[in-house]
Amino acid sequence: MNQLRIGMIGYKFMGKAHSNAYRSLPMFFPKALKPEMKAICGRNASAVQEAAEQLGWNESVTDWRELIQRDDIDLIDINAPSDAHKEIAIAAAKAGKHIFCEKPLALTLADAREMLQAAEDAGVRHMVGFNYRFSPAVRLAKKLVDSGRLGQIYHFRAWFLQDWIMDPQFPLVWRLQKEVAGSGSHGDLGAHLIDLAHYLVGDMQEVIGMSETFIKERPIASEMTGLSAKGSGDGPKGKVTVDDATLFLTRFENGALGSFEATRFAAGHRSTNAFEINGSLGSVIFDFERMNELEVYFTSDEEDVQGFRRVLATDPVHDYMEAWWPPGHTIGFEHTFIHEVLELSQAISEGRQPVPSFEDGVKCQAVLEAVDKSIEERRWVSLLEM
Amino acid sequence: MNQLRIGMIGYKFMGKAHSNAYRSLPMFFPKALKPEMKAICGRNASAVQEAAEQLGWNESVTDWRELIQRDDIDLIDINAPSDAHKEIAIAAAKAGKHIFCEKPLALTLADAREMLQAAEDAGVRHMVGFNYRFSPAVRLAKKLVDSGRLGQIYHFRAWFLQDWIMDPQFPLVWRLQKEVAGSGSHGDLGAHLIDLAHYLVGDMQEVIGMSETFIKERPIASEMTGLSAKGSGDGPKGKVTVDDATLFLTRFENGALGSFEATRFAAGHRSTNAFEINGSLGSVIFDFERMNELEVYFTSDEEDVQGFRRVLATDPVHDYMEAWWPPGHTIGFEHTFIHEVLELSQAISEGRQPVPSFEDGVKCQAVLEAVDKSIEERRWVSLLEM
Amino acid sequence: MNQLRIGMIGYKFMGKAHSNAYRSLPMFFPKALKPEMKAICGRNASAVQEAAEQLGWNESVTDWRELIQRDDIDLIDINAPSDAHKEIAIAAAKAGKHIFCEKPLALTLADAREMLQAAEDAGVRHMVGFNYRFSPAVRLAKKLVDSGRLGQIYHFRAWFLQDWIMDPQFPLVWRLQKEVAGSGSHGDLGAHLIDLAHYLVGDMQEVIGMSETFIKERPIASEMTGLSAKGSGDGPKGKVTVDDATLFLTRFENGALGSFEATRFAAGHRSTNAFEINGSLGSVIFDFERMNELEVYFTSDEEDVQGFRRVLATDPVHDYMEAWWPPGHTIGFEHTFIHEVLELSQAISEGRQPVPSFEDGVKCQAVLEAVDKSIEERRWVSLLEM
Amino acid sequence: MNQLRIGMIGYKFMGKAHSNAYRSLPMFFPKALKPEMKAICGRNASAVQEAAEQLGWNESVTDWRELIQRDDIDLIDINAPSDAHKEIAIAAAKAGKHIFCEKPLALTLADAREMLQAAEDAGVRHMVGFNYRFSPAVRLAKKLVDSGRLGQIYHFRAWFLQDWIMDPQFPLVWRLQKEVAGSGSHGDLGAHLIDLAHYLVGDMQEVIGMSETFIKERPIASEMTGLSAKGSGDGPKGKVTVDDATLFLTRFENGALGSFEATRFAAGHRSTNAFEINGSLGSVIFDFERMNELEVYFTSDEEDVQGFRRVLATDPVHDYMEAWWPPGHTIGFEHTFIHEVLELSQAISEGRQPVPSFEDGVKCQAVLEAVDKSIEERRWVSLLEM
Repeated sequence: MNQLRIGMIGYKFMGKAHSNAYRSLPMFFPKALKPEMKAICGRNASAVQEAAEQLGWNESVTDWRELIQRDDIDLIDINAPSDAHKEIAIAAAKAGKHIFCEKPLALTLADAREMLQAAEDAGVRHMVGFNYRFSPAVRLAKKLVDSGRLGQIYHFRAWFLQDWIMDPQFPLVWRLQKEVAGSGSHGDLGAHLIDLAHYLVGDMQEVIGMSETFIKERPIASEMTGLSAKGSGDGPKGKVTVDDATLFLTRFENGALGSFEATRFAAGHRSTNAFEINGSLGSVIFDFERMNELEVYFTSDEEDVQGFRRVLATDPVHDYMEAWWPPGHTIGFEHTFIHEVLELSQAISEGRQPVPSFEDGVKCQAVLEAVDKSIEERRWVSLLEM
Repeated sequence: MNQLRIGMIGYKFMGKAHSNAYRSLPMFFPKALKPEMKAICGRNASAVQEAAEQLGWNESVTDWRELIQRDDIDLIDINAPSDAHKEIAIAAAKAGKHIFCEKPLALTLADAREMLQAAEDAGVRHMVGFNYRFSPAVRLAKKLVDSGRLGQIYHFRAWFLQDWIMDPQFPLVWRLQKEVAGSGSHGDLGAHLIDLAHYLVGDMQEVIGMSETFIKERPIASEMTGLSAKGSGDGPKGKVTVDDATLFLTRFENGALGSFEATRFAAGHRSTNAFEINGSLGSVIFDFERMNELEVYFTSDEEDVQGFRRVLATDPVHDYMEAWWPPGHTIGFEHTFIHEVLELSQAISEGRQPVPSFEDGVKCQAVLEAVDKSIEERRWVSLLEM
Repeated sequence: MNQLRIGMIGYKFMGKAHSNAYRSLPMFFPKALKPEMKAICGRNASAVQEAAEQLGWNESVTDWRELIQRDDIDLIDINAPSDAHKEIAIAAAKAGKHIFCEKPLALTLADAREMLQAAEDAGVRHMVGFNYRFSPAVRLAKKLVDSGRLGQIYHFRAWFLQDWIMDPQFPLVWRLQKEVAGSGSHGDLGAHLIDLAHYLVGDMQEVIGMSETFIKERPIASEMTGLSAKGSGDGPKGKVTVDDATLFLTRFENGALGSFEATRFAAGHRSTNAFEINGSLGSVIFDFERMNELEVYFTSDEEDVQGFRRVLATDPVHDYMEAWWPPGHTIGFEHTFIHEVLELSQAISEGRQPVPSFEDGVKCQAVLEAVDKSIEERRWVSLLEM
Repeated sequence: MNQLRIGMIGYKFMGKAHSNAYRSLPMFFPKALKPEMKAICGRNASAVQEAAEQLGWNESVTDWRELIQRDDIDLIDINAPSDAHKEIAIAAAKAGKHIFCEKPLALTLADAREMLQAAEDAGVRHMVGFNYRFSPAVRLAKKLVDSGRLGQIYHFRAWFLQDWIMDPQFPLVWRLQKEVAGSGSHGDLGAHLIDLAHYLVGDMQEVIGMSETFIKERPIASEMTGLSAKGSGDGPKGKVTVDDATLFLTRFENGALGSFEATRFAAGHRSTNAFEINGSLGSVIFDFERMNELEVYFTSDEEDVQGFRRVLATDPVHDYMEAWWPPGHTIGFEHTFIHEVLELSQAISEGRQPVPSFEDGVKCQAVLEAVDKSIEERRWVSLLEM
């Protein structure tokens, strides 16, 4: 059995990214378990049927409860809107299916913990979709930290800047509604930064944050799909119930200081997902808009040639890159998902937990909620409280 | 008949890039003719069989002559070593097959012209693999030139810099042998620059060049595949018969001045494929290592905010990008091939020549050879002589 | 009387920068009041004598009290260590002298207010040395904000990153002693960022911060001068009493969100003094290591050429630049001081307050101290409390 | 006698740069001979008198022949228009004065050689104003080449791109008239690149070039000063007799290949004076618009962190920088002249030739003229022919 039989729930932006990843895996990583794209599930029968054809799934279905009970499915891939994650994940776990769930894992920390517990109780494999960990340049940062080549870490600063909802006439899509999305820039963008911080620096002690919703009302969306939507400026308006921007400070357990900013109101930044780490022996800088590059500095360089190196992480020495193209030939956004499902596939094949797992999802959710609490109560909140 | 049935000859670096492109087309450009990957052909039966499985071809074969005669094939994709292009292409044309041939089209201009003639005589579609035309940022440059937004073009300068054979112990692979590869950096890298110049600026009047082979002998390769090879420093050496670097100057027919440099001896440049255009109303700068970006300058900008803009060509307004990911989410090297086969597929579907066609391949070969002649005869060579 | 007769107290790093500025003013801004460099004052008679000769002062003196009483002096320039600012400035004001005082204005907010009061009571002109305001690229940012070309401001983020004391063997210079320096990275580096925020965005409502001293003990300095010092690793150690790094969040009165970070522990950053402003119509990015450049983005750019422009602020349209070199010929750090004394000179000549004045110094001190308070009391502190 | 008594001829752009350099030398390099700015000379008595006051010269004069005969002058600084260099320099040499002459040394190679001969015959010191050699980042490049840290040099490519005369209405200033300026972009901009090539790589064997005058007629200038001028679009036009752009290829004596481009028609480039060197062990990249930086690559870096380093050449280890500001605090265009006159002053004080001397000026002129000849005769021209 060299296959991984998949049922996927959701078929928009993330559904497309995951489908492409499953489809690409055998060509570039032929030794991995081969994903078999059994069935894709959505509420709108004709739309999901069309998606199945385009994205290469054998079958389309509309009842996720049926799907998770099928014997010919090993793994449930959940990329439906965030408010649906919990119910599906718990049911899938009970049905003995491995689970690959998009981030944020859940709308609340309590929900996330329930999901983790369910998966552990069922003994299934679980993974959460923090795809940015799988950029080769980010892996290099991780390697430099873990090997001690950056020394003791003093600073982590990260910012995820977008500008796609700056127009006040941009409609009230589901990502701007707290009951569906959980939160705004914080949970959508900040969550990625938090996970990278956990991955690269470690756990946090305490946090304090600040957030704002700059545009408080928006036209009701008449139609929406993926990240885009249509609405009329003349039509009725609804209240934006999530944050447009959230910033927070943190102190890590290892003594490093952290600064985070997530915003959808940074004009000119389509998707600047960036971080910098400063250690006693060196620093690294990453920006996803130039995802093939990592800037690296070492204090040990000869004194007349000290400076940040622009490392193009496309040489075979870098994680995953031997499978791709010759040095200097770059990869893009979608490759993070291919590497992500490689880890998923390898972990299942090797009988171990994939990383990041639901535990990482829970940990991220704890920080998100601690920050929310710190904003509400206007005080530092310890992660121990969560 | 919404399909394009393909037989491919060659299965290494370019074979993989083309296979991935065929496989990806339906998912991202579902309205295009659907490539059906019928058969892949190579001399080594077991290697090509393995490639067929990994790359997703229905069948593997070893006799290309048989392949081009099959009734269930519409298009022959030629990415075998350059010395095989001519014979295959002419035979494929005679067999009434459309042809997609990797660059350089042929080892000589005469051969390239024969191939074009054969394709025209047979009334088949023909395309040559100048994939860099299909970067969205390059398309933007083209759009700015063609619309007159850069004004009259004064300068085109281009350089394709690599460093993969700088080690004198790197073995004598086929790309370093004139009889197989035709030329070295000139035909491999310079050809891309020449095609971009034709695409963006227009035809050339005359050229004068200079070239060098810095490492004149190398270890005989005991084994080689794609771009890499193994050889022993102690073993026998053979003569490098191609150029390590070739530079040339040109005057375009529209009066612009051009400067070209192709080298495999530029330490630190894994694959810097870059050009700049200066016109009377503005300039653009492109570097394939940051292929999602185009730097753009307009003289008409307000005088206090004049400067090169870093345009991230990932917005839906840019060619092809609506099919991919949200703004700010980048694509990579392989996407140029997907867009290339989109053009191939659309052209065949619409009953027109794809662009770039063998004519563009011939035009490029004419410049390559004019430069060679200018080097040999140490004089300016007019394109009219070719 | 077309002259400005100056007595300067202090002759190290800032003394040199100020001297050069006075000396350069007439050559590049010949219409300004001409600085007459009358006397320089320091405690060490031979050292200050040597400085006078090198820096171009007519005379050297050792008693600042005498200096400020002299009739042939119009302006007292104070760049002695921070703990001396208050006494000198108040005495100078009482003696009817105009005052140019380096930042931070004082060790405490109370002291700063006393100094401002004394200057106002005496009716003298007063200026504080926030030199970064005088970079042409920063002036451009100011112009874009004030003219509304960036729209409503949503975000200001700023970081001043250095690495000169990362070595634990670097000795305990005066800048690391609270009683002399007032604070560490916060007052030295953060103060500049705070002033830029006031200049570019406006007043703050409330702040919350975090700070750390990573290296808590250092060798006692046996000798120190300017920014450098000598100490022995084997010798006695003393306690570092200032912060190595301070971060804080703020909410501006206009609703913008601010994030600040000052650190001396960012390996590879010799002096990255950078900020970004995001508004509803555009953004700007500045980094002092590339001080001649401002990155500028406008939402109103045509949709196919949107991107940050690298504006090289050396054209004559940019503040001060007509006095310097042709476009594209850059200026450096010291020029900020020349422009600063130009403002000083013009204001005195025109009978108005120079900007930034002691009021700006007080306002900066209020934020510095509010941040300190927020750190001590672990809570948001309103500027109204200060 | 710790002084260097100077008489300067010319007082525009270069006159200002030199004056500032003389004036700054004692403050920043107090051990050097102290320039005494005795007299400045120009044809227009009132204009030169005004310049003397602004630029800090003791006296203004109008007869350069008298000036060079004065006993109280040690050095003649020539920055008058290029067609005046020869006569003045030879007369100054005969008068026993040291000579500092702006580039290009002369209008022709023959003239340049005569000047060198005259200086040698008289036994005076002579220097030519190739100021870019004196950027600390360029010195670092030189150090890396000379020490062998870049290995054998394979490539030198350089381009000096400006855009100040792109407007066809820009008038016919002296720099556009062959009889005064000698040549256009080639002698003005290309000369700097050629000198840097000599400095960094060595002598050339042969060259072949291409040039163009894009705008062939321009309004006669009614008034001109420095780089700017006024003219009327309606008024009479005159013929532009110099090149707007010149490109050439070269083969160096050490086997390296060179490519050069000088143009005043590169929209968006105010003054991009850039070069790259590729050697067997590494590469460097320099751009004067970011003159404090040198990008440096070493093949010997560990394989997972290979990349170009952005070295900010402001640390004390870099030439001249100890005299300036702390690390990370940049210098600008004018500093190249201060370092240049430091070399001049030190050489005179030490009784040796300054570098670059008239010999370097002659060598540069030989290449300029060889390129011109290669353009005229449409063939490769050996430097041995010159």
